[in-house]
Amino acid sequence: MATEPAPISFARGAPSLDIIDVEGLRAAADRAFTNDPAGSFSYGTSVGYKPLRAWIAERHGVSEDQVLVTNGSMQADAFLFDTLVGDGDAVAVERPSYDRTLKSLGGRHADLHAIELSEDGVNVDELEALLEAGTTIKLAHLIPNFQNPAGYTLSAAKRERLVALARKHGFVIFEDDPYVELRFSGERLPTMLSLSTQGEVVYASSFSKTVCPGIRVGYLVGPADVIAKIAALATGTYISPNMVAQSIVNEFVRGGSFDSSIATVKRALQERSTLLAQSLRTHLPDAQFSQPGGGYFMWVTFPEGVDGDALFEAAAERGVKIVKGSDFLIDDAKNAIRLAYSGVTPDEIDEGVQRLAQAYASL
Amino acid sequence: MATEPAPISFARGAPSLDIIDVEGLRAAADRAFTNDPAGSFSYGTSVGYKPLRAWIAERHGVSEDQVLVTNGSMQADAFLFDTLVGDGDAVAVERPSYDRTLKSLGGRHADLHAIELSEDGVNVDELEALLEAGTTIKLAHLIPNFQNPAGYTLSAAKRERLVALARKHGFVIFEDDPYVELRFSGERLPTMLSLSTQGEVVYASSFSKTVCPGIRVGYLVGPADVIAKIAALATGTYISPNMVAQSIVNEFVRGGSFDSSIATVKRALQERSTLLAQSLRTHLPDAQFSQPGGGYFMWVTFPEGVDGDALFEAAAERGVKIVKGSDFLIDDAKNAIRLAYSGVTPDEIDEGVQRLAQAYASL
Repeated sequence: MATEPAPISFARGAPSLDIIDVEGLRAAADRAFTNDPAGSFSYGTSVGYKPLRAWIAERHGVSEDQVLVTNGSMQADAFLFDTLVGDGDAVAVERPSYDRTLKSLGGRHADLHAIELSEDGVNVDELEALLEAGTTIKLAHLIPNFQNPAGYTLSAAKRERLVALARKHGFVIFEDDPYVELRFSGERLPTMLSLSTQGEVVYASSFSKTVCPGIRVGYLVGPADVIAKIAALATGTYISPNMVAQSIVNEFVRGGSFDSSIATVKRALQERSTLLAQSLRTHLPDAQFSQPGGGYFMWVTFPEGVDGDALFEAAAERGVKIVKGSDFLIDDAKNAIRLAYSGVTPDEIDEGVQRLAQAYASL
Repeated sequence: MATEPAPISFARGAPSLDIIDVEGLRAAADRAFTNDPAGSFSYGTSVGYKPLRAWIAERHGVSEDQVLVTNGSMQADAFLFDTLVGDGDAVAVERPSYDRTLKSLGGRHADLHAIELSEDGVNVDELEALLEAGTTIKLAHLIPNFQNPAGYTLSAAKRERLVALARKHGFVIFEDDPYVELRFSGERLPTMLSLSTQGEVVYASSFSKTVCPGIRVGYLVGPADVIAKIAALATGTYISPNMVAQSIVNEFVRGGSFDSSIATVKRALQERSTLLAQSLRTHLPDAQFSQPGGGYFMWVTFPEGVDGDALFEAAAERGVKIVKGSDFLIDDAKNAIRLAYSGVTPDEIDEGVQRLAQAYASL
């Protein structure tokens, strides 16, 4: 009897444990509990742990009242949507985009407009045409760096055009930027937040990808009046976010562990993405993809007619987990999948791709 | 020129730092990070950190699928209300009751029915009459032990009657029980959850009062189908609650720090409540109150016509913070205040009450 092969997951958009700085976290917790037990263990307020809020404000060159630190950035998204998006409001999203965001907006009965995404980011002409045709967009949700699921990055020129469009048409850009620190090739581009002049942008990021996901610390940066509204909503929801976790993150980022942790993560991601691309070229020549310059994800498309949902099933039967491309779309296209290389170790990659190729051949 | 007196706060429903087990928390964090780095630092699922969930299930004698661990119990309340309370639904609350709960329900446009609270708990006859008169109550929110703001405890007989009423009339009892562990006199009473036979009760509690508030770990226990619905809502809101914090709490409660921490807290609360009662009898003979057998709070009423809101202002001018009784009511009564003895140190109490008496005399 053949033994089951060990499962290999290209599905998890999360770091493997070997690239989490456990000792750095332990030391940060120890310092946090020594340096500020009152701040760590007492109720805080809904804006978050003050020293961490100050660190984030300084990093983005904004005032502290423009920052709110939350229990992970999904919670930040939920607060922002509750504040800005009403029933039936038009919201522009990328095509494809993060499935949880699509669901969250759909659950709030937003009228979603999916704008095609290319390797240099969302199709700004298409968005502009939609606006010029009279659609009043309330919010545009954009993941500018190493997008989830595509791995693509919005060009500098498009960032500038988008901020100008938002200013002209009065919509808010929600710049959802959890992967910004994970660039392993090419040059860092300015955030749309830094290009905004009249409060056009609300920016979100998180420490899930740079410290660890289990710490659940995310944040919003935006106009002070929007942040104040969200802070009131947050007070009524949970009084204060997790002070213990935010105090640990504060010590982690201020104590030198942050840069070394990011360097470790980036080195691992670059190695894994390179191995994944090589394996795909060798074993799955039908797979079309663009090798990302950072982040966790690769968007892999197959010739038209290939059923990515069926590939998902066939791969699962061979002990390989992937995510269906259709999860990231609000239309019926199916010839794509998302591969995450963040949660696989290097030695699993080639074996995983070989199994995926067998699954593909079986379709 | 006279110097300002140091402020004394009877407003904070939170433990003072001297009764938080900082070293126990440090040791628990160290063990958590050593024993289960993967579980502590990775994404979890919305039901919470599994070992802590198992501990809670065992403590309440329920199965694990009846437990959901959240980012503090206010967040648990919000999920429960979102799941069970629709626009215009009738909800019974205690009079007085916790201001944040009243606001949270009011914000969801619930039709609130305030049922008078006595020293032995809510007036069950009044609730029964309301039900018999044809009002379809969806949910009854009750804080059974050392109620916030009153400090009163629901009697065993009333607990049984309430569960029977819920069964007969088909409403859900929301047993909101954060103070249960803080009993310093009298005998522990059975939870309504333990008396329920047909899923009449959803129970909430938290580690804010037994470990520390900044850790933001609360939980719900209820029928598995209700918990599953809330788990889906929680996934869409924040993916998973704080795994680092829950893993620390898990080590804290399993490692022996829990009982000693509770013993420390109870000893301090008993001393403080006794001192507060003595000071009130000495300096403010008009104050009517019942000395609680546990918890943080004392509900102090004054003769009719006394304006508690004005007393709040006059006390503030003398450097004493209290909470207006009117914050805990949805009607216009004003002759009460809430005094919390959890956040004051023993040496502040008599001085604080003397200032309060001066404020009272100034009205």
